[in-house]
Amino acid sequence: MAEASLIAGIPEINTALYRRIRFLVGDPAAIIDLPDRSLLIVRDIEVERARRQARADEVACPRDFEPAGGLSGDRETATAQATGEALRRLGVRQVRAHRSTPLIFTHHIAQAGVEVVYDPDLGMRRQRCKDEQELAFLREAQAMTEQAMRLACELVAHAEARADGTLLHGGEELTSERVRAEVDVFLMRHGYANEHMIVAGGPQGADCHDMGSGPLRTGQPVIIDIFPRNKQTRYNGDCTRTVVHGEIPDEVAHMHAAVCEAKRAAIETTRAGVTGEDVHRAVVRVIEDRGYHMGLHEGDLDDRIRMVHGTGHGIGLDVHEPPLLDLAGPELLAGDVVTIEPGLYALKIGGVRVEDMVAVTPEGCQNFNTLPEGLTWA
Amino acid sequence: MAEASLIAGIPEINTALYRRIRFLVGDPAAIIDLPDRSLLIVRDIEVERARRQARADEVACPRDFEPAGGLSGDRETATAQATGEALRRLGVRQVRAHRSTPLIFTHHIAQAGVEVVYDPDLGMRRQRCKDEQELAFLREAQAMTEQAMRLACELVAHAEARADGTLLHGGEELTSERVRAEVDVFLMRHGYANEHMIVAGGPQGADCHDMGSGPLRTGQPVIIDIFPRNKQTRYNGDCTRTVVHGEIPDEVAHMHAAVCEAKRAAIETTRAGVTGEDVHRAVVRVIEDRGYHMGLHEGDLDDRIRMVHGTGHGIGLDVHEPPLLDLAGPELLAGDVVTIEPGLYALKIGGVRVEDMVAVTPEGCQNFNTLPEGLTWA
Repeated sequence: MAEASLIAGIPEINTALYRRIRFLVGDPAAIIDLPDRSLLIVRDIEVERARRQARADEVACPRDFEPAGGLSGDRETATAQATGEALRRLGVRQVRAHRSTPLIFTHHIAQAGVEVVYDPDLGMRRQRCKDEQELAFLREAQAMTEQAMRLACELVAHAEARADGTLLHGGEELTSERVRAEVDVFLMRHGYANEHMIVAGGPQGADCHDMGSGPLRTGQPVIIDIFPRNKQTRYNGDCTRTVVHGEIPDEVAHMHAAVCEAKRAAIETTRAGVTGEDVHRAVVRVIEDRGYHMGLHEGDLDDRIRMVHGTGHGIGLDVHEPPLLDLAGPELLAGDVVTIEPGLYALKIGGVRVEDMVAVTPEGCQNFNTLPEGLTWA
Repeated sequence: MAEASLIAGIPEINTALYRRIRFLVGDPAAIIDLPDRSLLIVRDIEVERARRQARADEVACPRDFEPAGGLSGDRETATAQATGEALRRLGVRQVRAHRSTPLIFTHHIAQAGVEVVYDPDLGMRRQRCKDEQELAFLREAQAMTEQAMRLACELVAHAEARADGTLLHGGEELTSERVRAEVDVFLMRHGYANEHMIVAGGPQGADCHDMGSGPLRTGQPVIIDIFPRNKQTRYNGDCTRTVVHGEIPDEVAHMHAAVCEAKRAAIETTRAGVTGEDVHRAVVRVIEDRGYHMGLHEGDLDDRIRMVHGTGHGIGLDVHEPPLLDLAGPELLAGDVVTIEPGLYALKIGGVRVEDMVAVTPEGCQNFNTLPEGLTWA
């Protein structure tokens, strides 16, 4: 009985599948790995390109594995049917499947008489332990993200304040949308896609995932969180800074000092062999020692200043991937690349978050960031 | 026993889930629909935003449905575990699941003692039959795509030819990359993401999915295929034109005339009740009557001029979605929005493709395109 594993889906959006085959297509595909060979199934017009580019020993299309009942006229169904038929013809009775495998595939594989077994570990070590090439791609993405961040922070820091506190830049009102548009153009010209980014001023920043909108104001923290994807390599950057135009309120300065100290504590703790929970607990100690609180705000009147989220997450082809640096976070592996992003949030004031990206090593970690942490920009 | 259905995954990339809940987040989520209520499970920091924005009666986070053995420290696993536990507590013994449901969900739901049943039809009619709002979004996306197309075609048509046949625009060489960059900037300024687009000149265009690269030349067909997504509505445009700078080779003119006639024949055939195969066969008749061939090229020396793909595909939140206009394509429904995009490809000459987007009605179809089909641009 042949030992086999499977990753199936759409390579454009299924990063496990793209990581395995390094072939980009917007239609369904499946890769079957046997001990001595691999078979990739893609849409017929992609077969020749896949033979040249994809990491697979053999490439076929659904028609090459038409089951006795024929193929569906629905492309996804046909690909799933052909995957089942291919496994059957290869003599596979049981296939270990990646966690992302869509039900349409597991269903049609079972219809072909092949048992599908969930393998929670399949592809996960490969995803987490970045190789030299991947580390270089992430470092490059983070360097570009820092350039974009500097541009965004300077836009805010160098603006003029009007009498009502709103900001002007080049004679026009400076809004979250304008900062976003400038960053979008900058990143696009450098080959990066910037699907979303956060520019959240004042109380908007208290909801840590509010994208931010409208005029920015002097004397308020503005959280800027940029996580663009290099369109060539497909690896992501992820960096956050908080900037204040004009005078910095004392409480914001205290929050920022606590967040930066928490980040340092996390970075000092991070190395292969400790857990994501260990790193998070180092952050929690600093936050609580400084008199702040952990956990979500309890209603709109909660005046506690809180860290409402974990310390960070893995990053690679996905912006969010394992491991989590949070309670119950797993043991870190050499090659994990993670964000470290403590933050504090006050409903009336807004949020302060600072985020770096680090690569885990046996001895500690390497910080990919070089940008200042400050609230002000020269 | 409660009747229940499920869509699970990441709303940012799982369009069936986004369509159901209209709530955007990059972390795992699941919606359970019962006859009288619905329950959405999202990450804890998203619960409040989801209560305000998402189409769901109740919103919870994984911790609200912690199973006896506790939740994993892996976010996707924890969401899957909580989904299983929620179904169990709701008294659901069997749940119909969407075709996209990831194996990690079906596995943990089964672990909770709930049977997962593949429902090939779940969400499919809702996906295919666009409502008035969706039709407006698609029409708007296609109008913007046409503006971008006009810009791209004019760049090529109005360029200067050098003695060696390569093109100059504004004193610099006109390449596929430059056309793409101009279109990228234009679409970005109008709120559209343009992840990929094809600008394939001469023989590059013979591979219908070659993105194109390098200098463009006079007297060659340039296939331009633009399929951007409106970042607000998330609906896609999809339009193709073929442009020739300078003198049009006779064979290219013949290919273009055949493709346009095939498109007209397809549009005349399209209405609710006919099949995708019927529409495709109308195209095949024109292509073959004109002496061209169907099917993939047989090796690098095949000098037949061929249509190598189907006639079109459904479009909406995904660029490619059911139904296919191809052999075995299903009966069309009122509200289907499909592309109609016949093309002809000659290995030595390149490709000619023209693509419109139409909405299927009981009586026929509405064409969302108004752009000329021509090879030249005034």
